[in-house]
Amino acid sequence: MASPEYAKEGVNAVKRLPKRGAYDYTTIHTLINTSPILHVSFNDPEHPFPVVLPMIGCTGSFADPSSDPNTSVQDIYIHGYVSARIFKTASASAPGDEQKGLPITVSATFLDGLVLSLTPFHNSCNYRSAIAYGYAHLVTNEQERMYAMEKITDNILPGRWENSRVPPTNAEMKSTSILRVKVASASAKVRTGGPSEDRADLKNKELVGKTWTGVVPVWYQWGEPMPGKENGVEEVEGYIEGWRMRENSKGKMGAYDAIKEEK
Amino acid sequence: MASPEYAKEGVNAVKRLPKRGAYDYTTIHTLINTSPILHVSFNDPEHPFPVVLPMIGCTGSFADPSSDPNTSVQDIYIHGYVSARIFKTASASAPGDEQKGLPITVSATFLDGLVLSLTPFHNSCNYRSAIAYGYAHLVTNEQERMYAMEKITDNILPGRWENSRVPPTNAEMKSTSILRVKVASASAKVRTGGPSEDRADLKNKELVGKTWTGVVPVWYQWGEPMPGKENGVEEVEGYIEGWRMRENSKGKMGAYDAIKEEK
Repeated sequence: MASPEYAKEGVNAVKRLPKRGAYDYTTIHTLINTSPILHVSFNDPEHPFPVVLPMIGCTGSFADPSSDPNTSVQDIYIHGYVSARIFKTASASAPGDEQKGLPITVSATFLDGLVLSLTPFHNSCNYRSAIAYGYAHLVTNEQERMYAMEKITDNILPGRWENSRVPPTNAEMKSTSILRVKVASASAKVRTGGPSEDRADLKNKELVGKTWTGVVPVWYQWGEPMPGKENGVEEVEGYIEGWRMRENSKGKMGAYDAIKEEK
Repeated sequence: MASPEYAKEGVNAVKRLPKRGAYDYTTIHTLINTSPILHVSFNDPEHPFPVVLPMIGCTGSFADPSSDPNTSVQDIYIHGYVSARIFKTASASAPGDEQKGLPITVSATFLDGLVLSLTPFHNSCNYRSAIAYGYAHLVTNEQERMYAMEKITDNILPGRWENSRVPPTNAEMKSTSILRVKVASASAKVRTGGPSEDRADLKNKELVGKTWTGVVPVWYQWGEPMPGKENGVEEVEGYIEGWRMRENSKGKMGAYDAIKEEK
């Protein structure tokens, strides 16, 4: 079954180099769920600049926890703190939007490689990037908060939730902020392949003969874990090392695969 | 000489966990100049969500090109396209700001490690993140555009400018968009060290005996370069391989150093 798509509208339509655009749930939700860090942006009515904060999060559906992000509508759960003032002033400044929540943008980006051509103008980057626009609420329902905390914890490192001390204490629950973003619109943009060149440059044999062109791939490399001061386990647990190896090999393969696939 | 600092004001003050905040030029400009990707955010008056785009860029000073970013005021030059409509509508909606330019936020983030504690509540990430708020203009002066293009090219890969075909043709110059951001305010936030634990958890010998705690470091790993279809140079040039090795070793060292340094 083909993955459903977000509607292509004014807000999310990829206008520049539209052939690089993607709107399907699989591409967008996978980028959000595999990026170890999300950039979250919203407006503080007290100043003209959007705020951009690195946060962690993933997609989920509290109403239908077993739903498949490849085929189902998802919310985005974000672990992070946004001051109550911003929620309040944002609602106050747009009274009709109070029900809707705080307008928020979630961005997930992977850099896959530096693309080097014969001339700086044609240099580029291979990347995969998703952007989701939606309305955020602070999650107040305790069961939903617990659902999101487990989801976010295991989204980074599968198995960590059940392999550590859970559930959180009441005090811990109280001091954890979780945002739920109802996605209004989303898109992805992907650049793959090698350099494209100017025809005149390719005819310049001296230039071609002395200027290396191609792609330097790049990925997140997870290094050997360093035990903390109070660690009491001699060997790093297998599920951690397994995850680390899988991430490193997926990251490296993804960066090299991106070079082959021209887009 | 101590690095000068950005004034701590309402906009940029790190309010949450202020001990992690930094305001000095060295920390902030270095983060912007070493991050291979920047997240740039601004408002499109046509919809309520800030736009967030991954772009490349670096600091610079066209007025004083030899100025040291550790000690001198810097602009941020961004290679990227922002629709003329947004520049126009942004100015129109805030007529007094027309001179100031488009309010824009530039964010640079390094993830340095996943911090694993005995309980999910105390899990964290080591990271370094800079955020700069300023006013953007499209650079129209051709000399300044050339200055910025060289700066941005060599900021990613030192030496690439002079080792490839320059200067750009007129057509290339015309279709390159460069933004100059006059920085109004900026700050950085840095989390280092290992996990912190709950005292009750540390007393739980069974938990401590079975739950590995510590940090899994992470960095950008640049892999072996892949030649493009039209590459005519057998061996990757030395300045490229030198850069790649330096980046990999700096990245790895940075991630491990972050663990040692408690903040």
